[in-house]
Amino acid sequence: MIQLVLRPGHERRVRRGHPWVFSNEIQPPSQDTLPGQAVEIVTAGGEFLGTGYYNPHSLIAARILSRQRQCIDCVDFYRNRLQAAFAMREAIYNGTTAVRLVHGEGDHLPGLVVDRYDRVLSVQFLTRGIDCRQHFILQALQDICDPEAIVARNNVAVRDLENLPRQVEILHGQLPDRVEITENGLRFKVDVLQGQKTGHFLDQKENHLALRDRAAGKRMLDLFCYSGSWAIHAARFGAAEVIGIDISPAAVALAEENARLNFKDDTCRFVTSDVFDSLRQFNSGNERFGGIILDPPAFIKNRKRLREGIKGYLTINRRAMELLEPGGFLFTCTCSHHMDRETFLDTLRQAAFLAKREMRLLEVRGQSYDHPVLCSCPETEYLKCVVMQACD
Amino acid sequence: MIQLVLRPGHERRVRRGHPWVFSNEIQPPSQDTLPGQAVEIVTAGGEFLGTGYYNPHSLIAARILSRQRQCIDCVDFYRNRLQAAFAMREAIYNGTTAVRLVHGEGDHLPGLVVDRYDRVLSVQFLTRGIDCRQHFILQALQDICDPEAIVARNNVAVRDLENLPRQVEILHGQLPDRVEITENGLRFKVDVLQGQKTGHFLDQKENHLALRDRAAGKRMLDLFCYSGSWAIHAARFGAAEVIGIDISPAAVALAEENARLNFKDDTCRFVTSDVFDSLRQFNSGNERFGGIILDPPAFIKNRKRLREGIKGYLTINRRAMELLEPGGFLFTCTCSHHMDRETFLDTLRQAAFLAKREMRLLEVRGQSYDHPVLCSCPETEYLKCVVMQACD
Repeated sequence: MIQLVLRPGHERRVRRGHPWVFSNEIQPPSQDTLPGQAVEIVTAGGEFLGTGYYNPHSLIAARILSRQRQCIDCVDFYRNRLQAAFAMREAIYNGTTAVRLVHGEGDHLPGLVVDRYDRVLSVQFLTRGIDCRQHFILQALQDICDPEAIVARNNVAVRDLENLPRQVEILHGQLPDRVEITENGLRFKVDVLQGQKTGHFLDQKENHLALRDRAAGKRMLDLFCYSGSWAIHAARFGAAEVIGIDISPAAVALAEENARLNFKDDTCRFVTSDVFDSLRQFNSGNERFGGIILDPPAFIKNRKRLREGIKGYLTINRRAMELLEPGGFLFTCTCSHHMDRETFLDTLRQAAFLAKREMRLLEVRGQSYDHPVLCSCPETEYLKCVVMQACD
Repeated sequence: MIQLVLRPGHERRVRRGHPWVFSNEIQPPSQDTLPGQAVEIVTAGGEFLGTGYYNPHSLIAARILSRQRQCIDCVDFYRNRLQAAFAMREAIYNGTTAVRLVHGEGDHLPGLVVDRYDRVLSVQFLTRGIDCRQHFILQALQDICDPEAIVARNNVAVRDLENLPRQVEILHGQLPDRVEITENGLRFKVDVLQGQKTGHFLDQKENHLALRDRAAGKRMLDLFCYSGSWAIHAARFGAAEVIGIDISPAAVALAEENARLNFKDDTCRFVTSDVFDSLRQFNSGNERFGGIILDPPAFIKNRKRLREGIKGYLTINRRAMELLEPGGFLFTCTCSHHMDRETFLDTLRQAAFLAKREMRLLEVRGQSYDHPVLCSCPETEYLKCVVMQACD
């Protein structure tokens, strides 16, 4: 196997278990290499560190799949990795029909995401090294899951960084007319081909349960509601009224359909609108809510945008706090990796001050267990969900 | 009321809702004042900021009890504050016999702690300003709670900073021969007079439930076990064997008694020993555990000791990780305010590296809801409880 040699003094991160090697940390390969080719990563002194794949076009030049000398160009390797990942989910989510089966680096499969929606798998090949091994991975998935269909949701920006095209494809089987899942006993239709990300957000499963005992009888607001899962959970936990807001008409239509799947009444109402506009309108109308959910898209795409992103979180959280009734709850999320817990909490403290509200911090939650966070790779973590309550 | 005037430019923290005024932030009072005396805190420009009490002997010279011009030398004031605090607990812990009724700054009663153990109140007067208002507070507590006894657990180091003596007193009623509480359906005897802190640790109530689904059939270790509440919860959630370790023979005796209160079998076993010694012994004996609980006393008493304290957390967490079976769980706590979430997580990442274990981060938990954390006063927060799992 071709060796990828680290420049002297650049082995620390990899030695500590991190799977990434940056392009400025390596010496030019001595042989010709193809993008995605398997490599052995070794120190300048020749010490073996791991087996991975190489992409000269990417800032993350190599990602490590194994700490052993191991063939990564065979079905067996992926079958073993997938089996370990599936066993972990089975132990926690036995019987669930919607689960993230592979969370990239968190499952020692950098660049690969596999979500299961009932009998359909929705997959993302995010790196050249994973993309060119599709055939091994598809075979391993079929061996283990026997899915009705496998859809590739490769229409994502990160593929640009790897010099890969953006596209959506059905790679195996036939997509059923309708894909439906259950989450915490509630039903959701999933738009596997056109929905956001892989079709549904699986990372908030446990956080939705934080609405229990905090929604009953309340007027609730679900901002950036997408397909309505927060709103519908709020209604299930007894909210008197839920207004969901999203800028996408397709998301609002899906949310409405999902509400009808679960309830006969019209507790949940969805509106197509810009969230910042809606917040201003509610404010000038002096409206108040007993609970507000803020689950925006990532405002911070990279570290350079941290300051600007923090401003965005500050503004929406401040506006939301202003709309809370005394005793009202705020469920506020960030899915920006670069926003760490303490920075997010500082932003929320600042928002409370600007909103002139005394807020109590109740919980700092994370992402679902099927999105594993590894100590050795902090980038596996991105979602934080904070629960607060207005004291008065 | 006497005015305490801030030095120019020192009003920012107080204006942002924080209740503390440091001695270097004030101008010398123009009149004679008694330690503990009520004061109005005003800016250099004469703007009113709040009503509080003053102690010239303390680094925290004044603490604010109200943002209004209000008499704080009457029973009414405390009755209102207590009623608000009790109502908040009632909404969450209705029917519980053990609850923190007042959490100092978190309930806008800086310097006061009130824990309820069944029909007994265990109280701490931590500042001069609260100590000299005992009679108002005792009257208000009797009016609202009608307790059988009120015990002052004033044997704490922070009272030295306020020039107050350390002592334990029964301030009202007669202490029953035996005080017993239930937590999550389990029974615990509380040693109100001689137990640690106010007699029992109420701040881990919800965290104990994180053992559910993570203890069944496992051999567990509870380090710094005190009166056994983690160990006994582990046994309740199906642990095959639990070893609790504490350096205090009195704690171990109480833990043994508590285990007998709940179980007829000998699943829980307690040992008097130094935890660092025990960790070394288990290590050299190549013992392994399916779950380890690490709930040590605060290693960081003040910011100056941060680095040294981090080393302590690093060592015990590293040793504990080394003892985990593949798939084993670690429940690791810090009750040091100065150890924030990200610093604690960094320490745990470092511990995992040193222990050569791949660890998965599952949950970052906090203190019980009856220990409210206010955005305006970060010092109200101290406890973090992290749940991790060894990948292999």
